[in-house]
Order: sequence, then C-alpha cells, then structure tokens
Amino acid sequence: MAKIKVLIASGISQEVADMLKDAPAEMEISFLSEGEQLKDHLSDVEILYGVVSEDALPHAKSLQWVMQPFVGVERSMYPAFKESPITLINSKRLYGPQLAEHAFALLLSLTRGINAQLDLMRDKAWKWTQCVEVSGMTMGILGLGGIGRAVAQRAKAFEFNVIAVDPEPMEKPDTVDELGQLDWLPEFLSRCDVLTVCCPITPQTHKLLSYAEFDALPTGSFFVNVSRGKVVDEDALIAALRSGKLAGAGLDVTYTEPCPEDNPLWTLPNVILTSHTAGASQNIAKRAMELFIDNMHKYVNGEPLTNVVDKEKGY
Amino acid sequence: MAKIKVLIASGISQEVADMLKDAPAEMEISFLSEGEQLKDHLSDVEILYGVVSEDALPHAKSLQWVMQPFVGVERSMYPAFKESPITLINSKRLYGPQLAEHAFALLLSLTRGINAQLDLMRDKAWKWTQCVEVSGMTMGILGLGGIGRAVAQRAKAFEFNVIAVDPEPMEKPDTVDELGQLDWLPEFLSRCDVLTVCCPITPQTHKLLSYAEFDALPTGSFFVNVSRGKVVDEDALIAALRSGKLAGAGLDVTYTEPCPEDNPLWTLPNVILTSHTAGASQNIAKRAMELFIDNMHKYVNGEPLTNVVDKEKGY
Repeated sequence: MAKIKVLIASGISQEVADMLKDAPAEMEISFLSEGEQLKDHLSDVEILYGVVSEDALPHAKSLQWVMQPFVGVERSMYPAFKESPITLINSKRLYGPQLAEHAFALLLSLTRGINAQLDLMRDKAWKWTQCVEVSGMTMGILGLGGIGRAVAQRAKAFEFNVIAVDPEPMEKPDTVDELGQLDWLPEFLSRCDVLTVCCPITPQTHKLLSYAEFDALPTGSFFVNVSRGKVVDEDALIAALRSGKLAGAGLDVTYTEPCPEDNPLWTLPNVILTSHTAGASQNIAKRAMELFIDNMHKYVNGEPLTNVVDKEKGY
Repeated sequence: MAKIKVLIASGISQEVADMLKDAPAEMEISFLSEGEQLKDHLSDVEILYGVVSEDALPHAKSLQWVMQPFVGVERSMYPAFKESPITLINSKRLYGPQLAEHAFALLLSLTRGINAQLDLMRDKAWKWTQCVEVSGMTMGILGLGGIGRAVAQRAKAFEFNVIAVDPEPMEKPDTVDELGQLDWLPEFLSRCDVLTVCCPITPQTHKLLSYAEFDALPTGSFFVNVSRGKVVDEDALIAALRSGKLAGAGLDVTYTEPCPEDNPLWTLPNVILTSHTAGASQNIAKRAMELFIDNMHKYVNGEPLTNVVDKEKGY
C-alpha cells in the first residue's frame, strides 16, 4: 500500500521531530529544508505541518489537511484557500495556559505597580506605591474559546466575578458566573473592572471595541489584550487611556505589528506593551506536535480531526 | 453601667471611622489625634486599635486586648509585652488576597519577561523574548497560613502542582497536593520549580533559607518572597542568583528595610524588588476594621476573639 505523504514545513527542534516516531506507520514523513520552496515539494503531500502560502496552493494537488502550530488563521484566510476543500487545523486551546499567564502578568504588573517599582529600582529607591487589589472585582472576558476559558479558570481563583461574552451559544463553564452573546455587550462592558480580550480577529470582531465600547466601561477599569490588536480601534483605546477612563492597559498585540514608533502606546503612562510574546512557552512546540500526531492517527482511523477551523467563521 | 473605653490609635480614613457606628453600644470610642502620645491616653483604655509601644505599656493599666491592622507582630514582641496578659490580635488572613496577587505579579513578571519588555519599551523596540510557562510546574509554599493558602488557591488554578511546608500539623487544603512539616523541607525544596515564602519571622524561621536550602532547589527555579526578608540568608540568595541556580527572584521584602543602596539585589539581573508594597490594597483598611468590630461584639458577648496571636510562636 502506498504510504501517506506528510511534509513538515514548520521549523521544529530535534526533540520535537523525535516525537514523530509515534506517528502512524502508514505515514511517510519528510521535512522541508531551509531554503527549499514549499511549492516545489507539495504535489504529492497529503498532510502538511505548516501553512499553505498563496503561491503554493496551486501545487497542493493531493493535500487533504494542514495543521498550523499557532492559533490565528489570518495567513490562510485568502479566498483561494477558503474555497479549497483543504481542511485547516489550528492550535486553539493549546495556547491557553501561557496566554492566560501572560494576561495575568500584564494585569497584575499594572495593579501591583511592578512597572512603577521597576522604575524606582533604577534609582535604588525604596518607596511605597499604592496598589489595586483585584479580588472581588469583575473581570469581563471577550471571547470564551481556549484562551478565554484558561483566563476564566485563573480569574475565578483570583476571586474575580467572571463574566464573558461569546458570539457562539455554549454551555457556561463553572468558572464563569455569567455568559452572554454579543447583544449583551453594552451591559457586559458597563460591569468590567477588567476587560480581557481573548477573541480571534474576524470581519465581525474588527474594531469591535471603539469609542462607544470604551465609554461603556467603568471609569478606572483595566484593559488587557492578548489575542489580536485589530479587535481594537486603537485611537479609541488611546483616548480612553488619556482621559483616565482606563486606569491602565496591558497589551501583547497592537493594531499594526511591529508597533510603529510613532504609536502613543509606547509612551503613555500605565501602558505595558509586550511584543506579541504571550504565546511563548517552552512546552508549546511539543503540545502542537502531540496534537498533530493524534490527528494523524485519527485520519488513518477515519475519525474526525481535532481543532478543525471553520473557514467561514475564521476560527 | 460604665462604658468600655476603646482607643483608635492607628490612622484611619473617615470612611473607615464611619464603620464604627456598627460597634457595640457598650463601647465608648475615642481617637488618638496626630501629635498626641499613646501613653498619655491609655490608662483607662480596655481595647486598643494600633500597637502598644514599649514606652506606653506601663500606662496600659486596663488594656485587655489590642488589634493591629497588619500581620507581622515584630513590633509587639518585646519581653514586657510578651509577658503581659494583654491579648494581641493581628490581621492574618485579611492580607491573603493582595499578598497572593503580589506574589503572582512578581512571579509572572519574571516568567513572562515583563521586566525585559519594559526595558524594550523605553527604546520603542518590538522584540520577541523567550518566556517560561508555569503550567505543570511545581510550586512550593513555605508557610501555609492565610497568605500561603491564598497563594495555593491561585497556584492550583494556574495548574501548578502545589506542595507546602508548615511547622504546624493541619489538615491539607484541597488546593495543596502535598503538605509536610519542617522535616520534609530538604525533599520539598528539591522539587520546587517556584519557591514562595509566606511564613512569619520567628526565631525558628530566621535565616531558615540559607546556602544548603538554595542548593537543594532545582537549577533554574524561581524564588518569591512576600512575607519577611529575615527568613532568608541574603548572601545565600545572592549567591544562588549569581550562580544561575535561581532563574529569577521576585522580592517584596529584604533582610534590612529599606533595602540598603549597596545591596546587590538592586542591580542583579532578573531580580524584581518592590518596596514592601504587597500589603497595599484599597480594601484592607475596611477588612481590618470589620474584624475589629466583629471582635468587639465577641468581647461583649464573652465569645473567643478571632486572630489571637500566640505570643510564644510569634504568629
């Protein structure tokens, strides 16, 4: 029987490559080397680990499914791929732990004045600064997917009242106190002492948070974004920071990345900006490869694959 | 019937003073004004909110109990007070939320590279930096009192394996996976990817963590201290940071406070030092007053008071 051709087109370490010994025996696995073009090696590939770039798609004659070792699917949302029958698998849920850790790092750095204290350290200045206790506050989570759920789990243990909005109807997890759909957004926002953005960028979420939405927040609230900068109308965010509506913002993402030098977010007080590092983790490459291997087994067994992206919804 | 004289000798806001309307009717409450000496107003006081300084103690002829609106009891551990029959109440457990939030702020700032990214922000530099995911790691908590338990609750939700050492025999909370007493310390330390100090300073805990204890930690572990700097032999801590045994330290407390200018902790890389601000909270003054009022009701009803300090143990 002819083997199923699998191409690994995303850079992985030797340790992660070694995990492929657990792939099904039916697979013939090869690796795209540095400098090689994906399109030159794709014609008989049935399963791809990586991303099908637009120039390579016409060569993907045998491709059944592709898995990307990250979450946001923007790079695959070009029309020809969306219209193709190729199944797209992403890494949703796998990024939950580190993104939630990053969201709390940003939030708690603001509320506990870590940024102010690091400034004091430069002067070797021992000086008390006021802090904000978050216990008992309300955290609003926009987007209750893998990241939002990981944030909710931690927020509940931090004694937040946890509320969430998601466009999909879904069962409310125990770690969320109240859950609504998008029509609940205005009331939801009016109760968020902390608003944490955990949703993908789609045509529906593009600039979903603009002037009216920041206005709806309680004065002195905190804003955290660890998913996609384009969910936010950045002019509105900057205005809310300048007016004092927001007490602070912790951002791992900006509308344009890298964040342009003239973006006021670099210099506004009480903004902590990290360089899209929330996904960084010593474990993520292994978790993604585990899912890939598991999906290969499901594929040969004719079972449904895990983490299939709905190309219409864009997540 | 003569009223019970209560003196408020700790500065409180009007909002907190207003809470005293809920004190028992049997109480006659007065306030020590700025500039007044405690010893001049103590002779007929039965209940004090504050601290009995050593010079004032001989004047405390009627004092039955004193509540301090903070946790560490060092200021009352002079022999004459220890030997006196006056009951000491502290604010243990009330500080749990904000101290646990501060511990996580320090830890996650290190693991998510917030300190490194804040440095990059000064140069408006968008640059990826490696981060450490803590999910799945082991957190060791030294001292499972109010602060330790608050840390454990949050650590469990962050998917830590949570282990703890406490000198007291106690029932293991659900948020702690393994609990031992001090004889377990060496093995406990050998498993701590993160070691969080939450114990009081007592003769038994003074420099409890020295060279042997830091040596016992896994290489690359993180160290967090939000309780008392004197639990740590600071030379040993500094050596462990310099050797790379510790990947980082988040410290709200130092052996000597304010931290002296020549202390290397100010300038060692991957140290975040905050100026004993972990107790800061917009809610703590109200929580302490609630406990004080509750204890006044218990006192008039002849019930046991809450948060009585064991003067022998020192907590």
